Amino acid sequence: MVRILIHRKVNNEPLRAAVLGATGYTGQELVALLARHPRIRANFVSSESEAGQVAPGGRLRYVRADEVPLGEVDVAFLCLPHGESETWAVRARDAGARVVDLSADLRDGRHGAVYGLTELWREQVRGADLVANPGCYPTGISLALAPPAVDGLLDVTRPVMVDAASGVTGAGRSAKRDLLYGEVAEDYRAYAVGNSHRHVPEIDRSLSAIFGERIPFVFTPHLLPVRRGILETMYVPVSAGVSAAEVVASWQGRYGEEPFVEVWPEGLPTLRSTVQRNVVALGAADVAGVNGMVLVVASFDNLVKGAAGQALQNANLMLGLCEQEGLPR
Amino acid sequence: MVRILIHRKVNNEPLRAAVLGATGYTGQELVALLARHPRIRANFVSSESEAGQVAPGGRLRYVRADEVPLGEVDVAFLCLPHGESETWAVRARDAGARVVDLSADLRDGRHGAVYGLTELWREQVRGADLVANPGCYPTGISLALAPPAVDGLLDVTRPVMVDAASGVTGAGRSAKRDLLYGEVAEDYRAYAVGNSHRHVPEIDRSLSAIFGERIPFVFTPHLLPVRRGILETMYVPVSAGVSAAEVVASWQGRYGEEPFVEVWPEGLPTLRSTVQRNVVALGAADVAGVNGMVLVVASFDNLVKGAAGQALQNANLMLGLCEQEGLPR
Amino acid sequence: MVRILIHRKVNNEPLRAAVLGATGYTGQELVALLARHPRIRANFVSSESEAGQVAPGGRLRYVRADEVPLGEVDVAFLCLPHGESETWAVRARDAGARVVDLSADLRDGRHGAVYGLTELWREQVRGADLVANPGCYPTGISLALAPPAVDGLLDVTRPVMVDAASGVTGAGRSAKRDLLYGEVAEDYRAYAVGNSHRHVPEIDRSLSAIFGERIPFVFTPHLLPVRRGILETMYVPVSAGVSAAEVVASWQGRYGEEPFVEVWPEGLPTLRSTVQRNVVALGAADVAGVNGMVLVVASFDNLVKGAAGQALQNANLMLGLCEQEGLPR
Amino acid sequence: MVRILIHRKVNNEPLRAAVLGATGYTGQELVALLARHPRIRANFVSSESEAGQVAPGGRLRYVRADEVPLGEVDVAFLCLPHGESETWAVRARDAGARVVDLSADLRDGRHGAVYGLTELWREQVRGADLVANPGCYPTGISLALAPPAVDGLLDVTRPVMVDAASGVTGAGRSAKRDLLYGEVAEDYRAYAVGNSHRHVPEIDRSLSAIFGERIPFVFTPHLLPVRRGILETMYVPVSAGVSAAEVVASWQGRYGEEPFVEVWPEGLPTLRSTVQRNVVALGAADVAGVNGMVLVVASFDNLVKGAAGQALQNANLMLGLCEQEGLPR
Repeated sequence: MVRILIHRKVNNEPLRAAVLGATGYTGQELVALLARHPRIRANFVSSESEAGQVAPGGRLRYVRADEVPLGEVDVAFLCLPHGESETWAVRARDAGARVVDLSADLRDGRHGAVYGLTELWREQVRGADLVANPGCYPTGISLALAPPAVDGLLDVTRPVMVDAASGVTGAGRSAKRDLLYGEVAEDYRAYAVGNSHRHVPEIDRSLSAIFGERIPFVFTPHLLPVRRGILETMYVPVSAGVSAAEVVASWQGRYGEEPFVEVWPEGLPTLRSTVQRNVVALGAADVAGVNGMVLVVASFDNLVKGAAGQALQNANLMLGLCEQEGLPR
Repeated sequence: MVRILIHRKVNNEPLRAAVLGATGYTGQELVALLARHPRIRANFVSSESEAGQVAPGGRLRYVRADEVPLGEVDVAFLCLPHGESETWAVRARDAGARVVDLSADLRDGRHGAVYGLTELWREQVRGADLVANPGCYPTGISLALAPPAVDGLLDVTRPVMVDAASGVTGAGRSAKRDLLYGEVAEDYRAYAVGNSHRHVPEIDRSLSAIFGERIPFVFTPHLLPVRRGILETMYVPVSAGVSAAEVVASWQGRYGEEPFVEVWPEGLPTLRSTVQRNVVALGAADVAGVNGMVLVVASFDNLVKGAAGQALQNANLMLGLCEQEGLPR
Repeated sequence: MVRILIHRKVNNEPLRAAVLGATGYTGQELVALLARHPRIRANFVSSESEAGQVAPGGRLRYVRADEVPLGEVDVAFLCLPHGESETWAVRARDAGARVVDLSADLRDGRHGAVYGLTELWREQVRGADLVANPGCYPTGISLALAPPAVDGLLDVTRPVMVDAASGVTGAGRSAKRDLLYGEVAEDYRAYAVGNSHRHVPEIDRSLSAIFGERIPFVFTPHLLPVRRGILETMYVPVSAGVSAAEVVASWQGRYGEEPFVEVWPEGLPTLRSTVQRNVVALGAADVAGVNGMVLVVASFDNLVKGAAGQALQNANLMLGLCEQEGLPR
Repeated sequence: MVRILIHRKVNNEPLRAAVLGATGYTGQELVALLARHPRIRANFVSSESEAGQVAPGGRLRYVRADEVPLGEVDVAFLCLPHGESETWAVRARDAGARVVDLSADLRDGRHGAVYGLTELWREQVRGADLVANPGCYPTGISLALAPPAVDGLLDVTRPVMVDAASGVTGAGRSAKRDLLYGEVAEDYRAYAVGNSHRHVPEIDRSLSAIFGERIPFVFTPHLLPVRRGILETMYVPVSAGVSAAEVVASWQGRYGEEPFVEVWPEGLPTLRSTVQRNVVALGAADVAGVNGMVLVVASFDNLVKGAAGQALQNANLMLGLCEQEGLPR
């Protein structure tokens, strides 16, 4: 397979992609991003419920996942429900495709999957044939906490409080009463509180891998009446005397050259400031009258840097393309 | 049963109600209205999906519909899906209850049901034991067009164009992908266009009954990204020389004493001006440069005057109570 | 004046109220609540910008504040901008009216104003002629923290983190670019972070007064794309071994008989669960893997229990009426 | 100046643009589109209120309009308030720049401005140095009605009813109470009814120019609680026996090769289907039981094809570039 990929690259032909699960919000976003990608083209899009129908744009028709010739694509993106993805990941890799799995199935590293938080594990991603794309919430938390943790600014004896708010597309496109417009509009609610959210083990693993020991945290997600976007407000315990400016400096030191991390030297990013961009924006503030605490805000689009955009960023690396190719900044 | 009802009224005891289908949006609204009603109390609330659970407020527990002792209530409100209601309506009446059916099942008058557009059919409602509560869209259209039609202001050789926009709760509380927040927010769409909406025959019957002949019309509903409320913008063909002021005068003549119709002598009501009120607000405007056409706007809450409020208004009449009892104006 | 008030009460005449600043969101809400109040009637409504126009409902006309005969009312509600209220409060009291000031001007107790967090300072309110109605954010925080603080459950050596989200009406009805629909919709943003919000000193005073010493806290408000409602998610440091159940029990002990505090024995209130009700709802949860921390959520309507409803609750007490009169639960 | 433009084009240097009024919604959109344009670069952005501040992206700083060296740019986009634009248009043209004016000032053709509804007046635009970019509402109406009018399908003895709904950004970014989130959310309202909207003369002129005689119409705009997007529902009187299919065929005949008009052979476009795309989507439907009437729906983004996108489409033509360059489809 690799030979053919090289052949296509040498001849400047578009690389070939399949998107499995292309009618959910993440799948739709990925297909939309690929439509503007100069080097990769979606050749197959699968949907069990809409198989046979013409996909938006008119160029492709949805097929069932088992009708996709996985051996004929350079990269397969799996936007399948959690639990269903693992089998397809193995199958696609065995068929010779690079695989980016956007489900939670492989984030514990099973089948040798590399954890695709690109900015932190770039070299591993570059050589990988199977990447587990991070969950949306963990992406912002890990990127925000890694530099100050590594630089010794955090006081890990006290927990980080992560108060997160997500747009509704983060909960998927399946018909559920709780996600009806009539239920979500003009409401705001905490859910999966008390560290019971599915992302908690992933956050734990990610922070442990970065820091070398566990960082205690409390994670409280909320459902926002917006379509897309995540804002994470973090109450970060820091060593005595550490200020917001030092946290910002730590980010700048680590992410100064990163195209997809935006460090705000002052002010805090709003949710909408990153919508439809493949960017995590980070800001910090001091808290009057309270020592040993810095307020940190991370903003990013759950469908882009939190899912499809980061998946494409990883695919660019895995396929030997420029990492920024086709990604909106 | 009637003897017991009279007994309760004489002794100033609360009358007894059942709400079948109490967890949909209409059912919830009716239960909320009854909670503030000085003379009627909800004694039974049914829900197939939530049977056994405690209803909001903590006083009642949901039961299955067939567990409701219909013979023990003075009035039964049926907030059941279209198609399921007819059987229950007959059963409840046979058990001795007054029945207000909020589904579309009986709006053609079957089983002797009276069409409960209260302002137009008040005397019939007063004596009825079975009332078919009008659909939301027809309520505004009939109330707006009846007076000028009867007063001979309309030109019935040309169709009325009704461009209607409804909040999402009008589509019910069942889990459907099309009604997810992620689909409805930041969108606006026409549906059931070309006179294909379920309410079209009802509008037709209602206008024919009022006017004595058919009034041609085009009905185009749209789905609005709001939770509740309907705004109907009507392009009404009028006889040569008829102005908006004459339409307003016609409404004032007919509705001057009506507590639940609000005639705006100038300006046009907005959608939110009637939300959570049992009111239809009507306004009219002339159109510069176009003769024989008056613009009419009707605004009302689809869940109140368009459903639960009107149902209660009808029940008040059927039970010999003051029509306005317990209804927010 | 008092003699006339007693006269009206004895003769069951409606008591007379003035609402100064009746066209802001808080003023509108108060006028709407008074319209359904069985014992108090709004006799005067002021608005500088809409003076001369007819107020909604058609019964009253807006006048300028200095046209209101303060000596003729039993109670004056001041819904004026911060900084403008103080003068009017003194003037209205001098004229013989009971005064409830909804601005921040008197919350430090100046002019002998009683802090009107009704559940905590009921007896003081009852005898007062001048009440400073609490700010919206402090209302939920104080009611949530007071019982566990008094019961010794809190660990006051560590700060409470209060992550709060408010609907837009909390920011007033003045035309500001930041509050345009085009700016707020599909966004979510932190503001006045780092303990810089105007309510911080008020929260500090309130907690100090309850507890007898300062309770350190970090307060981060966010602007939600909803019209009304506040949800406060609090990360509350507790003494070793204290559980959410004990916090709930503390609330139940203190608020068991309170009509306007709703303690949830399990689950957490959502924002919309309290909208248009004069209620603060409280819930708590444990956090897996973290000791000495209980998660607390308070939900209430910023315009009702957070402003106009609580003002009316205070007025009821000040006028010797039943505290619950005219208040939606 | 032209020589320099040719020089830049021959040498493949980016062409130079100024955006006057760059902080309103239209100006922001134009700057965002230019940021992705392969051949034109924004070199100057003006804002009276934010002069001196850094514009988003960090590359430019806002200046006052009179600080922009109009002689140094190839094209000037005027996103200024109606009434202020005319002077700047003349000044910029005199300085040698091509000018696209997005205000309503020049849409009557004064100063020789060409009306820039690109699909209908392409050749005129191509040779123009001054283009009046159409208003948002007229764009959809003209594109929908022109082909069936020219093909003789319309019955021009009866008026077209245009019921339009627009997102809030169409009303600009100035601070107005009516446009606050608290006023617009959960509302829907007609405004400028009865053919009193500023766009009515423009629609009239545009239809007259296309058809050679006046086409009577009734135009009713509504304000939608969405950020962006317009949906126009038109009740189009047609000659006896003309069906929706014939209207569709007429569009296909005229727009078959047009990149920015999307004809839907079946179904009707929703508002969101065109958001962030430089496209007008058109659909039609028959109406059961009513003869001589076809329902037409046009959907487009008020900020893109309704303003900034069409402005760029015109500029591409005026500058001799490919018309589609840099425009999202």
